[in-house]
Amino acid sequence: MQTPTVNTKLVILLGQPLGHSVSPSIHNRVFEKLGMDYCYLPVEVSTENLAEVFRGLTKMNVAGFNVTIPHKVHIMEFLDELNPLARTIGAVNTICIRDGKTTGFNTDGQGFVQSLEEKAGISVQGKRFFILGCGGAVRAIAMTLAFKGAEKIYLCNRTSSKAKKLTEEINREITPCAETVEQETDAIDFFLKGCDVLINGTQLGMHPNENISPLNKALLSRHLIVSDIVYNPLMTKLMKDARQIGCTVVDGLGMLIYQGAAAFRLWTGVEPLIHEMSEVAYKLMTIDNQSKTS
Amino acid sequence: MQTPTVNTKLVILLGQPLGHSVSPSIHNRVFEKLGMDYCYLPVEVSTENLAEVFRGLTKMNVAGFNVTIPHKVHIMEFLDELNPLARTIGAVNTICIRDGKTTGFNTDGQGFVQSLEEKAGISVQGKRFFILGCGGAVRAIAMTLAFKGAEKIYLCNRTSSKAKKLTEEINREITPCAETVEQETDAIDFFLKGCDVLINGTQLGMHPNENISPLNKALLSRHLIVSDIVYNPLMTKLMKDARQIGCTVVDGLGMLIYQGAAAFRLWTGVEPLIHEMSEVAYKLMTIDNQSKTS
Repeated sequence: MQTPTVNTKLVILLGQPLGHSVSPSIHNRVFEKLGMDYCYLPVEVSTENLAEVFRGLTKMNVAGFNVTIPHKVHIMEFLDELNPLARTIGAVNTICIRDGKTTGFNTDGQGFVQSLEEKAGISVQGKRFFILGCGGAVRAIAMTLAFKGAEKIYLCNRTSSKAKKLTEEINREITPCAETVEQETDAIDFFLKGCDVLINGTQLGMHPNENISPLNKALLSRHLIVSDIVYNPLMTKLMKDARQIGCTVVDGLGMLIYQGAAAFRLWTGVEPLIHEMSEVAYKLMTIDNQSKTS
Repeated sequence: MQTPTVNTKLVILLGQPLGHSVSPSIHNRVFEKLGMDYCYLPVEVSTENLAEVFRGLTKMNVAGFNVTIPHKVHIMEFLDELNPLARTIGAVNTICIRDGKTTGFNTDGQGFVQSLEEKAGISVQGKRFFILGCGGAVRAIAMTLAFKGAEKIYLCNRTSSKAKKLTEEINREITPCAETVEQETDAIDFFLKGCDVLINGTQLGMHPNENISPLNKALLSRHLIVSDIVYNPLMTKLMKDARQIGCTVVDGLGMLIYQGAAAFRLWTGVEPLIHEMSEVAYKLMTIDNQSKTS
């Protein structure tokens, strides 16, 4: 990176904690490679200080923001405009500033879809999805899948009422393609059999619980594409199980990379270098995993 | 520079305009050479937005600030504490944040004194000074000289009432060493003869008015040390005249470097690399001058 000047446009990542975020390395690599005078800067901020920090930053030479946990919902009240998909999802992970106006977007779902389509070589249109979990990431993914023409989306969550609420929202606000599945072996087995893609949207399997899988291996069958939003470790227990029986597997890091690429386009109007972004991200995750086991 | 992380401490330069500031290059070079995880970032901000931007930044991972025109006086109202010299000068160019508390300092005068002492090989204590001009920089320089034991400080300004006001302040608040000199050839000639150091504290001679000098060459004598606060060009008309008749001359860039070095110590508690700072600053000014004449 070069020394920043007054002309250097900033892109700010807001969240807490941000200790292991790979986004600064990904974006700064692309800015450097493309000779763009931008600097991606992570700013850890508490919910209490979010308003003051955000307002100050919008008066600086800032092109945009990434927003992550725990601010994706709360940040919306400070924005001038909301993109329709972000409004439906009810969360923002990307903010652009144009002519002094702030607009919120959500590229998380789009990042997941692009990663899945690229890596599994499919189109999500007309496909049938089985999703485990019902947190913020699943909200973004399920709604984006519905927007993109998924034929069916089964939602299965430990707290069934949460899945039912999201099911109703998707069916009412986008298209009636969602259905709630109770978290019982027989029900999962029955509905999963008819699906093309299984998505783990829970955090089960994430470091330091690498030996946990959100699904009994016996319920998997080899025609499934299995995608995990967990990317630490890159190869989760669920993915290992799936690969053993012959499934195509898609790791969670792609979602992070493609949501970043979509955000990059929004901030800059420039096409990012996906290959560079992937290289940096996978290298960092590998180093990170090595340091944990050594 | 490395990609900034959440651990990277920021140092912010606040001012407007900041287009040609050399401070980011100077400080970032030293941070890099010393392996310190800091980033010096220039932030152009209007007086209107200063409060909001400053309050937001103090909630981020910021170690301190440099403050320059036009905010050196106005910024004081947002600070928790003021260093006594900064309070007397009535302007702040450096801010530290320790335990969430902001303290304002003024290292401009100290920067001038150190540069003069280093480059002319003298001590200011017991010396007699003749200062042209009466703006913010002269305020800081004259008050610091008085603090450091200057025997006499003559203040000569086009608007004599301003010089009289500063004279009274110095004599009342620090020590009775100051005297106002009317801007008339005979008076200047009479008092300048008894001085050790002549300081140009006006902007006369600054690019694009390189051929203007604040003082008739005939009034100079070879025993004088002649120091200019103008550093663009590095060798002003006044300095050229002075050098021709055999005076020791001290350029204005040293003041910038040493005020930065003093600020660096305050933000970090670490001794900066003056040699590196000088190398970067002189290189940039030379490039800058070449680009103007080509």
